[in-house]
Amino acid sequence: MGVADDFATTHRPTLDQAMQAARSRTHFSAYPETPSGKIYGEAAKAEAEAAFNSLLNRPFEPGARQIGAEVSPWGPTFGITYPALDVATLVARAEAAAPSWAAAAPESRAGVCLEILRRLNRDSFLMAQAVMHTTGQGWAMAFQAGGPHAQDRGLEAVAYAMEELSRIPGTARWVKQAGKEQLVLDKQFRAVPRGVGLVIGCATFPTWNGYPGIFASLATGNAVIVKPHPSAILPLALTVRTARAVLAEAGFDPHVVQLAPDTPEAPIATELATHDAIGIVDFTGGPTFGRWLREHVGGRKALHTEEAGINPVVLHSTADFAGLCRNLAFSLSLYSGQMCTAPQNIFVPKDGIETNEGRKSFDEVCAALAAAVDGLLADPARAAGVAGAIQNPATLERIAKARSLGRVVRDSAPIPGQDTARTATPLLLAIEADACEAWGEERFGPIAFLIRCPDAQAALDYAAGSARARGAITALVHATDEAFLARAEAAFARAGVALSENLTGGVFVNQSAAFSDYHVSGANPAGTSCLTDAAFVANRFHIAMARRPAAA
Amino acid sequence: MGVADDFATTHRPTLDQAMQAARSRTHFSAYPETPSGKIYGEAAKAEAEAAFNSLLNRPFEPGARQIGAEVSPWGPTFGITYPALDVATLVARAEAAAPSWAAAAPESRAGVCLEILRRLNRDSFLMAQAVMHTTGQGWAMAFQAGGPHAQDRGLEAVAYAMEELSRIPGTARWVKQAGKEQLVLDKQFRAVPRGVGLVIGCATFPTWNGYPGIFASLATGNAVIVKPHPSAILPLALTVRTARAVLAEAGFDPHVVQLAPDTPEAPIATELATHDAIGIVDFTGGPTFGRWLREHVGGRKALHTEEAGINPVVLHSTADFAGLCRNLAFSLSLYSGQMCTAPQNIFVPKDGIETNEGRKSFDEVCAALAAAVDGLLADPARAAGVAGAIQNPATLERIAKARSLGRVVRDSAPIPGQDTARTATPLLLAIEADACEAWGEERFGPIAFLIRCPDAQAALDYAAGSARARGAITALVHATDEAFLARAEAAFARAGVALSENLTGGVFVNQSAAFSDYHVSGANPAGTSCLTDAAFVANRFHIAMARRPAAA
Repeated sequence: MGVADDFATTHRPTLDQAMQAARSRTHFSAYPETPSGKIYGEAAKAEAEAAFNSLLNRPFEPGARQIGAEVSPWGPTFGITYPALDVATLVARAEAAAPSWAAAAPESRAGVCLEILRRLNRDSFLMAQAVMHTTGQGWAMAFQAGGPHAQDRGLEAVAYAMEELSRIPGTARWVKQAGKEQLVLDKQFRAVPRGVGLVIGCATFPTWNGYPGIFASLATGNAVIVKPHPSAILPLALTVRTARAVLAEAGFDPHVVQLAPDTPEAPIATELATHDAIGIVDFTGGPTFGRWLREHVGGRKALHTEEAGINPVVLHSTADFAGLCRNLAFSLSLYSGQMCTAPQNIFVPKDGIETNEGRKSFDEVCAALAAAVDGLLADPARAAGVAGAIQNPATLERIAKARSLGRVVRDSAPIPGQDTARTATPLLLAIEADACEAWGEERFGPIAFLIRCPDAQAALDYAAGSARARGAITALVHATDEAFLARAEAAFARAGVALSENLTGGVFVNQSAAFSDYHVSGANPAGTSCLTDAAFVANRFHIAMARRPAAA
Repeated sequence: MGVADDFATTHRPTLDQAMQAARSRTHFSAYPETPSGKIYGEAAKAEAEAAFNSLLNRPFEPGARQIGAEVSPWGPTFGITYPALDVATLVARAEAAAPSWAAAAPESRAGVCLEILRRLNRDSFLMAQAVMHTTGQGWAMAFQAGGPHAQDRGLEAVAYAMEELSRIPGTARWVKQAGKEQLVLDKQFRAVPRGVGLVIGCATFPTWNGYPGIFASLATGNAVIVKPHPSAILPLALTVRTARAVLAEAGFDPHVVQLAPDTPEAPIATELATHDAIGIVDFTGGPTFGRWLREHVGGRKALHTEEAGINPVVLHSTADFAGLCRNLAFSLSLYSGQMCTAPQNIFVPKDGIETNEGRKSFDEVCAALAAAVDGLLADPARAAGVAGAIQNPATLERIAKARSLGRVVRDSAPIPGQDTARTATPLLLAIEADACEAWGEERFGPIAFLIRCPDAQAALDYAAGSARARGAITALVHATDEAFLARAEAAFARAGVALSENLTGGVFVNQSAAFSDYHVSGANPAGTSCLTDAAFVANRFHIAMARRPAAA
C-alpha cells in the first residue's frame, strides 16, 4: 500500500490539526471558504462552468440502465443520467470490496479519505455549480456549504474516527497472580467494521449532510453505498467519482464507495436499509421516513438520522435592536429557510421587549423585523444570492396555505427578475401563542411565525417545550439579563438544542461550525444522533479480541 | 456537596488506576476476589450468614404492596417480600431526583459511585449468600462473580463514563477571521444525561450483568430504575439499598436509584421500557424479550442488550490433550453451563485431532472429555461447588428433551447428596454436523454437543457461521497450527466473538476479565452492544452547547 501510505504521510499534519481542534473545539478549517482565484486558481471558476456544462445532456457514466431527471430550481434541466444498479449487485460489490479496506491500517484509510477530500476541495468550483443547480442555493452558499464546509465536515468525521480507533491498544499482556500460579495471557485487539454503510442523501445539503456519514463509515473501515436524493444526484455522483479514483490509485477496489441512484417512482432506500449486509444507516431527510427507519432498522443497526427541526427564537431584551433585526432577518432569508438550522418560531412577549432604543411593542418588533427583511432583500441580485431558489415546488404550495394561519406581517413573493427560477422571500406571520397547531409543526421553507406570548418566561417555556416534544436543532435567545440567559441555557440543554445568544453581527444561528459546534443532539425528535461526537463513530465498528496463554 | 467531594477525593486513585487499565487492557482489579478473613475480616462470613438469615421471612423494607416469592435453587424458600410501586410513581420519583444528580460534577458522581462500590465490596459475603441462593451458583462463584468481579465491572463502567466525559471541554473561545472582521464567540459545553436509565436484571448473574448498566447510567448523570428478575431480587435489592444510603449521605435524593420489583404474573418491564421518561434501557436476558425491545425501543432510546449466545469450541490440534480436556470439562461444568460465556457446541473433525498423545479419533475425544467431566465432578462436594444448582426448573426439562437429540456420550444426573437442591451435571451428546436444527439453537444449561465435522476447516466454518447467524459471545479454538489460528482469529473477529486459544491451564473461556476483555460485541445476535467500550457509555448523554459573542 505504498500510495495509501504516501497519502497518510502527506495528510498527517492536517489530520493532527483536525483531531486537536475537535478536542479543543476551537476554530479550525482545512479548506479555504473564500472562492478566491489566488487560492483555487484564477481560471477555476471558468473551468468549472465549462466542466459543468460538459456534464449536461449525457450519461454521467456508461451503464445499462440509465436514470436521472434533475431540474435546477434556477431553471435549466440537466439531462444527465446515471447508471442504476439493483440492490443485490450493489451489495455484492460492496461485500467483495470490503475485506481489503477493512484490513488496511486506520492510518492508511485516513490518508485515502484526506486525499479524497483534497481533490474534492480542488474541485470546489465545479461542486458549487452542482450544488447550486440541484439545491437552489445561491452560488456563494453553494460554494461554501457545498464545498469547503462540507469537506471540513468530512475531515471532522475522519478525526473522530481516528480518535476512537487510536484508543484501542493493538496488544496487551495480561498478568494475574492466582494464588501461587501466575496466569499470563497475550491479547490482541482489532477494530472490525460493522458492515456496509448506507448513506441516504437529502435534496438541500447533499454534501454537507452526506459527508459525515460517508467519511465516518469509510474511516472506520466500512464500504459505503451512497443513495442520493433523486433531485440532487450530481453532487454525490461527483463525490463518489473522486472517491473511487483515489481508492483505485491506492490499490483498493473502487467499489468501496458506490453510487446508488434511484427515482421517486422506484425508490430503493427501504430495500437497501433492511438488507442484512447493511450495518450502518445515515439518513438526512423528513421525519416520515426517519420514523420508518427508527422502527425497522434502529433496533439492530447503527442508525444516525437528522430529521425535522422546528427551531425557536426567544426574545427577552437586547442591547442592539437594529443588530438583532438585521441578524435575524438574514437567518430567516438565507436559502429561504431551507436549512435544518433555520429559525421558524419567534417567541415574543405580548408587552414587547426592552431594547437600547427603548421598549418595543410586539407590533413594533414585527414591523422592524419585516423592514429588516425588506431591506436585506431590496436589491434583487443580492436577494437571489442570499435567498436562493426553492428546491421543491411543494414548498410554494406550503407558503400559499400558510398565509391563512396568522396575520401576514410580511408577505412572501418571487424575487424580481428571476423569471426562470422558483423563488420566494420570507413569509412572516403574527400569531397567538395558543395557536400551537399552526406553529407547532415544521413548515419547511421561508415561513416564520412571530408568536405573541404572555411574557418572556412563557416564551422560553413554549420554545423549550416544543423543542423537546417536536424537535429542534438550534435556538436563538436575545436577553440582556444573565439570569434569563442561564435559564435558557438550562432549558435548551435539557431539550438537546444548540443555543446561540445575542447574535447581532456576522455569526448566524443557522451556522454550525465544524470541529467546534456539536450539530444535532439525538436528545429530541430532530434526530437520533449528534453528528460530531464520539457516539457518532463509536458504533460503526466493534473491537475483536483474541487471547492465548503467553509462550513460556 | 462536601461529602460527595470527600468520596471523590478518597476514591480518585482507584478511579485513575481503573481508567488507565481500561486504556491499556492490562490486568487490574480493585476488589479482592479471595474470600479471605484477612481481607474482609475474620468474622465476615459468619456475620454475613447471620445477616442473610435475619432477612428471611419478613419484608425487606416497609411498603404498602409487598411482593416477592424467591426460592433458592439450593432448597430454602426466602419468604422475603419487597415493596412494589407502580410505574407512574417510580418515574415521578426518578424525575424529581434527577436534576440535582444531573447537575453534580462528574467527579462528584464518580465519587458517590465508588463509595457505593466500596460498601458493596465490604458486604461481599452477604452478597455471596444472596447470589448463591437466588442463582444457584456455588458459594465460591457467588462470592467472586456476584461480589468483587461484579464490583470491578461497576467500576469499569464508571471509568469508561469518566473517560468520555473528560473529553468535553467545558468552554472554548472560537476565533475566526472573516475578511477584515474577527468573529469571536465564547462557547460552553456540558454533558446532559439522556433520561432515566432502566436496568432489567437477569436471574443468573444479577449483579455481574446488572452493574455495568447501573453504574454507566449513574456516572453519566442519569437516575436509574432497577427492575430485577422476579427470581433474583435480593442481590439487586441489597445493591439499591446501599446505593440509596450513599446518595442520601452525599446530599442527593435517594430516589436517584430505585428498585422496581415485579412478578411473573404482572410484569412491568414493557411499561417501564416504553415510558417517555426512560431514555436508556439495559437488558440481560432471553432473545424473545430482547427482540421485543429492539423493535419497540431500539430506534429511539439507547438500548444495550445481552441475549442468547451459542458459544462454539473448535478443535484442530493440541500440544496438551489432557490439559485441553481438563480445561474444557471445567468450562462445561462451571455453574452447569448457565453462563452467557459457557460453550455449547464443540466442533471436532470426523478424523479426530493431532495431539501430544498421538492422533485422537472423534470417539476418543468424546470419551476423554466425558472422562474429564467425570473426574472433575467425582467428589460430590466439589461437584456441587463447581456446578452449583439449576436456577430454573425449565432447564431440567430441557435436559430431558435434549437426550434424544444425539448419542449420549455422558449423561446428566443430579449431584449425589444434594437432595434439597436442583442439580444436574453436564449432558454431552455426539451429533453429526448436518444436524444443525439440534445444535443450531441455544440449549441453555448443562447441555453440550460434540459435533462431527468433515475436517477442521469445516469445523471452523460451522462455528463462525453459527456465531454470525445465531449469536455467540465467546469461542475457544485449540490448534498448534499458526495458520489455522490466524484463520480462526479472522473468522471470529468478523463474527464478533471473543476468541480464546489453547486454554489448558487456569484461565477458562467462560471468564471475561474486567478492564481487559471486551465483553459482547454487538456484532452478532448475542447482543446489541459491547458492555466494555466507549459506545456503551457515549450515548447515555448528549453534549449541550451555548455560544455567544465574546464581550468586547
